[in-house]
Amino acid sequence: MIKVGVVGATGYAGSDLMRMLVKHPEVDIKYVTANSYVGKKYAEVYPNFGKHIPLLCSPADLEKVAKECDVLFTALPGGMTAGLLTESILDNTRVIDFGAAYRLKDVKVYEQWYDEHKSPQFIEEAVYGLCEFNRDKIKDARLIANPGCHTTCGILGTAPLLKADLIDRKSIIIDSKTGVSGAGRGLNRDMLFCEANENTKAYKVAGHRHTPEIEEQLTYVAGEDIIISFTPVLVPMNRGILATIYANLKDGVTEADIAAAYEDMYGDEYFIRLSEPGTLPESKWVKGSNFVDIGFKVDSRTNRVIAVSSLDNLVKGAAGQALQNMNIMFGLDEKTGLDQVTPFPV
Amino acid sequence: MIKVGVVGATGYAGSDLMRMLVKHPEVDIKYVTANSYVGKKYAEVYPNFGKHIPLLCSPADLEKVAKECDVLFTALPGGMTAGLLTESILDNTRVIDFGAAYRLKDVKVYEQWYDEHKSPQFIEEAVYGLCEFNRDKIKDARLIANPGCHTTCGILGTAPLLKADLIDRKSIIIDSKTGVSGAGRGLNRDMLFCEANENTKAYKVAGHRHTPEIEEQLTYVAGEDIIISFTPVLVPMNRGILATIYANLKDGVTEADIAAAYEDMYGDEYFIRLSEPGTLPESKWVKGSNFVDIGFKVDSRTNRVIAVSSLDNLVKGAAGQALQNMNIMFGLDEKTGLDQVTPFPV
Amino acid sequence: MIKVGVVGATGYAGSDLMRMLVKHPEVDIKYVTANSYVGKKYAEVYPNFGKHIPLLCSPADLEKVAKECDVLFTALPGGMTAGLLTESILDNTRVIDFGAAYRLKDVKVYEQWYDEHKSPQFIEEAVYGLCEFNRDKIKDARLIANPGCHTTCGILGTAPLLKADLIDRKSIIIDSKTGVSGAGRGLNRDMLFCEANENTKAYKVAGHRHTPEIEEQLTYVAGEDIIISFTPVLVPMNRGILATIYANLKDGVTEADIAAAYEDMYGDEYFIRLSEPGTLPESKWVKGSNFVDIGFKVDSRTNRVIAVSSLDNLVKGAAGQALQNMNIMFGLDEKTGLDQVTPFPV
Amino acid sequence: MIKVGVVGATGYAGSDLMRMLVKHPEVDIKYVTANSYVGKKYAEVYPNFGKHIPLLCSPADLEKVAKECDVLFTALPGGMTAGLLTESILDNTRVIDFGAAYRLKDVKVYEQWYDEHKSPQFIEEAVYGLCEFNRDKIKDARLIANPGCHTTCGILGTAPLLKADLIDRKSIIIDSKTGVSGAGRGLNRDMLFCEANENTKAYKVAGHRHTPEIEEQLTYVAGEDIIISFTPVLVPMNRGILATIYANLKDGVTEADIAAAYEDMYGDEYFIRLSEPGTLPESKWVKGSNFVDIGFKVDSRTNRVIAVSSLDNLVKGAAGQALQNMNIMFGLDEKTGLDQVTPFPV
Repeated sequence: MIKVGVVGATGYAGSDLMRMLVKHPEVDIKYVTANSYVGKKYAEVYPNFGKHIPLLCSPADLEKVAKECDVLFTALPGGMTAGLLTESILDNTRVIDFGAAYRLKDVKVYEQWYDEHKSPQFIEEAVYGLCEFNRDKIKDARLIANPGCHTTCGILGTAPLLKADLIDRKSIIIDSKTGVSGAGRGLNRDMLFCEANENTKAYKVAGHRHTPEIEEQLTYVAGEDIIISFTPVLVPMNRGILATIYANLKDGVTEADIAAAYEDMYGDEYFIRLSEPGTLPESKWVKGSNFVDIGFKVDSRTNRVIAVSSLDNLVKGAAGQALQNMNIMFGLDEKTGLDQVTPFPV
Repeated sequence: MIKVGVVGATGYAGSDLMRMLVKHPEVDIKYVTANSYVGKKYAEVYPNFGKHIPLLCSPADLEKVAKECDVLFTALPGGMTAGLLTESILDNTRVIDFGAAYRLKDVKVYEQWYDEHKSPQFIEEAVYGLCEFNRDKIKDARLIANPGCHTTCGILGTAPLLKADLIDRKSIIIDSKTGVSGAGRGLNRDMLFCEANENTKAYKVAGHRHTPEIEEQLTYVAGEDIIISFTPVLVPMNRGILATIYANLKDGVTEADIAAAYEDMYGDEYFIRLSEPGTLPESKWVKGSNFVDIGFKVDSRTNRVIAVSSLDNLVKGAAGQALQNMNIMFGLDEKTGLDQVTPFPV
Repeated sequence: MIKVGVVGATGYAGSDLMRMLVKHPEVDIKYVTANSYVGKKYAEVYPNFGKHIPLLCSPADLEKVAKECDVLFTALPGGMTAGLLTESILDNTRVIDFGAAYRLKDVKVYEQWYDEHKSPQFIEEAVYGLCEFNRDKIKDARLIANPGCHTTCGILGTAPLLKADLIDRKSIIIDSKTGVSGAGRGLNRDMLFCEANENTKAYKVAGHRHTPEIEEQLTYVAGEDIIISFTPVLVPMNRGILATIYANLKDGVTEADIAAAYEDMYGDEYFIRLSEPGTLPESKWVKGSNFVDIGFKVDSRTNRVIAVSSLDNLVKGAAGQALQNMNIMFGLDEKTGLDQVTPFPV
Repeated sequence: MIKVGVVGATGYAGSDLMRMLVKHPEVDIKYVTANSYVGKKYAEVYPNFGKHIPLLCSPADLEKVAKECDVLFTALPGGMTAGLLTESILDNTRVIDFGAAYRLKDVKVYEQWYDEHKSPQFIEEAVYGLCEFNRDKIKDARLIANPGCHTTCGILGTAPLLKADLIDRKSIIIDSKTGVSGAGRGLNRDMLFCEANENTKAYKVAGHRHTPEIEEQLTYVAGEDIIISFTPVLVPMNRGILATIYANLKDGVTEADIAAAYEDMYGDEYFIRLSEPGTLPESKWVKGSNFVDIGFKVDSRTNRVIAVSSLDNLVKGAAGQALQNMNIMFGLDEKTGLDQVTPFPV
């Protein structure tokens, strides 16, 4: 059994991880930490866990927890993990971090989009945990930078077009619709029911922090610098991301070429489902699951491809991918504990 | 492995059953029937099943399916099963019926609230599949009448108060709030998004068909005739029922008496979670699960108890309870395939 | 023109009042106060007011504002107005208070359900601003206690049954479903989109502060002490209250008697619409308007009446009724500025 | 008083028009036609009209209605008006058509995207009723082709960029998020609450009929052929459209140039509100109103402009613009009957 600690277990991503860990056949949950709820039963904070887990919340003492766990999931508010991580923690355990601190390889880019980096010394060894891309490195990693939600959706939807050299690399636009849970459980007036319900808005236009993360990964795929336009849009639903991705096709590229590019890259990937021709993803079909659904249409009038990529921001966009990383790190079948059918309607 | 046929697999309840059957370790799904989708892949009708099940929809030929299955789940539109069921079907297989035809023991009461009964000869042997009440009979039954959603919620919330003789049996009022999926997937203007969203309404007031079903079961519990007021209320959410149940307390009844009544009746029931004193159920904590959450408050000013009972109308209110019945019928642990943690928020 | 000050204009109720005041033909808005937004354009806080109003938010200095206005609407957080109100303010202006401080005539009852009362000296002269009941007193009042939202809905739905002596006065139960805006715009985790969406819950069961307010008014109507059970239930929509009201009928009371009771009391009331026989209110038909829709069914099996009453919690349940009070106080047609058609769907 | 007939008054757009007509000071509603509800009170079909209008629904006999009305609004299902319109109708009255039949000047383009045209003889004289563009022609028109919802939003958001020659005319992409009411009130499984709620999907990608309408109008503005990519996206809310519009900036174009382009074109337009620098529209601020809110950001990294345009699909996207057209046609102030403040939250 893998001894697991969940640091920051009472946020939405932490809680969704807990949901899957509780039923994971190879996992023994040793610690759930939540500084705001120390001493309280986890199942009192989240009554959906009633009869499932008797654990109490403990303080986020990483040094201590590291000594007793084989792996830590750190699902702390932005940047906090970077301030807590030490060499001795990584000597004692392996860490899968939900935050952004170790996702970008260039600390200058990080500090341009975020704040000062608290532990840049760990950036180099950190492995970007996009499972479908980096399996081999993930296996032996001590530190995983678990990808962001918009980023996983955008990268996976766009990469085959670049890898197969089908599009003008300067023409990529990602318009990414997201449910409200991506904003987390913190108090924020804009996320009150009456403010977010019955509303759609674009936010952080031309400035969202997921932009450089998408660009870096797409640059690796393309083998040349990629710069994109990325627009997140908030829509009134609990979960789910659906991105519409636009790119200009190179001359002579056909629908069959595009289909082949997706098939070549993802044909063997369990958690990626390619839409049947004529159909496109809808966010409801991935809600609650670790799947990414991807489809596309060619707009022959403008010679563009419009790809549609959809995932659950809390699962493949956070907790599910983190667990998929753990499965890879510990030599398990990637699907272990992750292969439920999404309920519908839900 | 239990050979299973799902008749009417493309309604919401049928689909939610499929979600659980697909991952049930002791089940082999032989048939999914759906007259509207014959020959179509089930996973095309419900893309959330992509990569989970390769089966095609077949016609609802019960006689044929019965010969090849150990158990049939019939999730057909109102009353339809009663017109199709025959002695030879029941010779060949066991049937768990989602409809109302065999829930009421008195055919006259049935015909007063519903239409003419098409196969009254099966009423007597049918077992009312409220698992927590009828386990022993369910074990050996050929025909299970799977309870309704409002009814399961109302009966379970009220029964201990009657069993322990704590309330005036004429004073029971059940005000039962339900999400929209209870109305099914049929075309109905009132269930269009723009009609049901941002709206609350009471419907079929003083005339809903779940009324006699609740009354019959509560009558068994009380040992004397029970007549109730039952009001269903439609609220804008996909899933979930939350009932507020009112009753006048008999003289001298204390909060402790009530707590003891619930504990006595449900203390050993896995799928019933009694709320901690001072807390009450919310429908979000049972969404997607087979749990029923029950709590109560005493209103000392009026000497009433207000019990609150909540479940997921498609799970414990339909497909989950059906599967729980199957587990009992085939000697499995009741929780098999049913014990997932509800995701939240979802 | 009536010179108006709105104190606490940036809460949901204050903002909905502003929406109506801005287009009111007899009103000149002199002040909008909002301590959190002093110096900011009101139309920046609420961009729906863009091009409609150029005013800046000013501090809630009641003494000053009172001198320059004919009437003040005070829409401040619970109890705050009571701490600010003075004799000199009431010498200079008239006050319509959205809070609870002056709604209950017995200060002991107030302090039992709320906190210590900061200005009990004004309770006696305050007029309870339920327009349909107290028009004559409202005309000349200096201080109006504008009724609560659940209370207006519950009182209006129940009163005719008591006035015509049709029901057992001890049997009244009000189960009142409300949208989320009733909780206001303050930061509250339970009101985050992901917490309130797709959820239904009863709250403050057997202890909600609107209980004594309903009881006091119904006591006046009945001419004898009324005690009720009142249960508020939160449902996932922005606006609207729909109450189901239960009461045991006295012997021999007929449906016609009940219809006559409602007609007698409300037949001439513009803002009360009695449902056609066979139909019942739905909250969507009153959303955004000052109407209260009321209907009923007789449950002959239990000899109960189930009345359904519905209003918009921010309009007839707060800002609309406040404006109706102002119209009465200043001798205007009650409908002035209040008579828009509700958009649907909205 | 203008004598008005509303043909097809019980769809969502027709009903929203009725809401505004009922309170319009210069309008006398002579006919509300609705073939499905002939003889029924309009206020029974839509109870929000209770106490507002006593009219009964009559059959859609255009020839008859035309003789008694100064203007007809035809809000019929797709293409139906084209089959009913005659010269004698236009001799007797003026027509504002909500459908698409007369929006495109080239009948071949129409028949390529829609079906066979039933009355192409009226195309030439029809005036495209985008009020801000065609006021002069609207004044004297007999036949107005009222614009589509996505189209009004996309055209108004994009036009200034083309008019001021700031963008690469081949680079325009419009990603247009819409609420569910745009699909109308007809029965459609995809629009059931449980199907549309908690879901986001792109639809008719690279093939939506609003595409050529946007292109034609933008071509007039640009003075050269414009071809765009247009993607409609369905999001779970009742009303509202929010479009994100992407275009590559020409060399040297600055943020100030763009701001000036919008200001030049819309500075005097009452119903267009330009966002303050640093802010962007949200659909909730236009819900229920005739305003179009427009803002933009420059993405200097990619040298693109991202404009955001938002309106209410039933108001400025349908009924409101139709009424604005009527006001222009009859020499009234454009704002008459249209200038309410949007309620919020709603």
